[in-house]
Amino acid sequence: MNHSSKKFVTIDPPFAFNNGDIFEDPLTIAYETSGTLNDKKDNAILVTTGLSPSAHICSSTEDTSPGWWEKIVGEGKYIDTEKYFVICINSLGSCYGSSGPASHKPDTEEKYGLSFPEVTIEDIALSMKPVIDELGIKKLNSIIGPSMGGMTAMSLVKQFPSITKNLVLISTAAACRPFSIAVRSLQRKLITSDQNWKEGKYRDEDLPLNGMKQARYLGMITYRSPTEWNNRFGRKKSETIPRPEDFSSNRFEIQDYLKSRSDDFVTDFDPNSYLYLSRCIDTFDLMEENESIEEIIQNFNMDRVLIIGVDEDYLFPFDCHEELFDAFKSASKDVSIKKLPSLHGHDSFLVDHENFGSSIKDFLES
Amino acid sequence: MNHSSKKFVTIDPPFAFNNGDIFEDPLTIAYETSGTLNDKKDNAILVTTGLSPSAHICSSTEDTSPGWWEKIVGEGKYIDTEKYFVICINSLGSCYGSSGPASHKPDTEEKYGLSFPEVTIEDIALSMKPVIDELGIKKLNSIIGPSMGGMTAMSLVKQFPSITKNLVLISTAAACRPFSIAVRSLQRKLITSDQNWKEGKYRDEDLPLNGMKQARYLGMITYRSPTEWNNRFGRKKSETIPRPEDFSSNRFEIQDYLKSRSDDFVTDFDPNSYLYLSRCIDTFDLMEENESIEEIIQNFNMDRVLIIGVDEDYLFPFDCHEELFDAFKSASKDVSIKKLPSLHGHDSFLVDHENFGSSIKDFLES
Repeated sequence: MNHSSKKFVTIDPPFAFNNGDIFEDPLTIAYETSGTLNDKKDNAILVTTGLSPSAHICSSTEDTSPGWWEKIVGEGKYIDTEKYFVICINSLGSCYGSSGPASHKPDTEEKYGLSFPEVTIEDIALSMKPVIDELGIKKLNSIIGPSMGGMTAMSLVKQFPSITKNLVLISTAAACRPFSIAVRSLQRKLITSDQNWKEGKYRDEDLPLNGMKQARYLGMITYRSPTEWNNRFGRKKSETIPRPEDFSSNRFEIQDYLKSRSDDFVTDFDPNSYLYLSRCIDTFDLMEENESIEEIIQNFNMDRVLIIGVDEDYLFPFDCHEELFDAFKSASKDVSIKKLPSLHGHDSFLVDHENFGSSIKDFLES
Repeated sequence: MNHSSKKFVTIDPPFAFNNGDIFEDPLTIAYETSGTLNDKKDNAILVTTGLSPSAHICSSTEDTSPGWWEKIVGEGKYIDTEKYFVICINSLGSCYGSSGPASHKPDTEEKYGLSFPEVTIEDIALSMKPVIDELGIKKLNSIIGPSMGGMTAMSLVKQFPSITKNLVLISTAAACRPFSIAVRSLQRKLITSDQNWKEGKYRDEDLPLNGMKQARYLGMITYRSPTEWNNRFGRKKSETIPRPEDFSSNRFEIQDYLKSRSDDFVTDFDPNSYLYLSRCIDTFDLMEENESIEEIIQNFNMDRVLIIGVDEDYLFPFDCHEELFDAFKSASKDVSIKKLPSLHGHDSFLVDHENFGSSIKDFLES
């Protein structure tokens, strides 16, 4: 899969990071667009992403490889690029074209690594604004943010209250819960404990792949739902023949599945970028300035909000969605909420295209 | 804490392990007893344990340190040792006095390590019978089995159908689900990936403590409930001052809590024993011989059964308990089930003494 995004915006220095660091190098933000921006420039939909996707949201003539939301976005699809101009931006700190720890310092072969400033959701959101400006868009038709992207979407509206007419928040939260902080902090420990990590100065030939695989294995445990696995795997035995002295040998199909999903992922994603983005999910809090969530949302100047989630989401349980709904309601916003019957846990928006797609389409077209 | 159990039974060779291995060395099984066996020898309660406890279930004059179920078992307590003779046996494969990978080969300083046969729940149960025989007990008043101990209890009754009058199964299952297999298989990977593990031949001075801590950290995530943590920690910040370049630094209290609980545990438990017992939970299946669960339970020759669990148990969700209840019911056994309102997840039986204790006491005395 080709993850290189085709378009770039350069943000001239200095860039003031949320933690106080002033960054004196130019920043690059990578993005892709699909469809055509109309003359009134009012048909643009920005999709902000979860931790791991690139800006390649759907295939195009320039890049025919399938995008991460291929079944949702495209001509005649749920988010119809014959009608909408879809923008997908690679998050600051990620490794698919935007600046981050995996980028090279100007005019050198040396990567920033951990010398790149700490990235927060606020920084990711702020760095998206120049892309929207570059495209000449005054007001987006919609922002659609799944998972971490929902946090980015909320932060973008907090910083630019009139930036969008509509907001769709998918499987996300105003601030994550201790359970998911616990999971992510362990994932980071697994990567930084890999002896190849070397305080972030790993060599391309000796990546901390074992730690990345372990982190991904744990990720997969929390991305999906126990009910899905009961139905799909139950106690079906693996075809691997277990050796008694090998504690890692797969005795059950669930282990084969997790192993293959972990192995697939890890060669593609920069370990430091993973650490940066993982941590910024923990630290995001829409309410961090000690205001109430209602006061903050009061300032959001938008028409309509849709909140979507599923029942068995370990990372963003449905009461996160209900909390958001109540807050938008208290702030007198036109908000609706949908609990979808998907069994795929947090990953449902990547798997259950029909339910998620039609909910988004109905909202956009109503 | 002194984990050395005070009493031992030696099982003379050969011992036929469930996997087909014939073990030619003597086996030692460690146990403790509290209270007095009456003349009719009909007041004995056997408590089978979860993965990590020793046989030291409660303090005694011989060993005044608190036992792992100190608030439940003792004179005048819920399981009253003025009335009952309580036996607690350290599981075969564990490291608190019973034989296992941490034991020394006869007349040597060398540990068995991975040359110890694979241990299954069936082996653990079978190895408890000689203790009961040694004590001259023909029929136990009750077997009480929490967590892995519930599996051991069921296996013991399956192998010796008339061994007990009553059975209490706590937070357990007839066979575990793919979610918990996934968690445990990752825990084992974390230990065996520690460079100090050395295929089980670690040195006492260089134990695979990092892997053990990671496994315990993951364990704690699944032993407790998200609701407990929402109430107890929420997003409270740690007193640690985070360094941006340190991804393991604790930013939230939940991380402090998990770190301290993981550090406490690991110096005490033998890594290979942990691997052995963890795996035997995955592989246990009451139905493994292709009979129906009802047919198997039909053969259980006991008076009454109580099944207890809580709502938010990730490792043994309540539908595991309902499945057991339905199976006992179909086999026309006198069975009751209790869902306790505890928020402490799988660990509830170790924390919520009042609810668990009084449920057990009511059952024993009714």
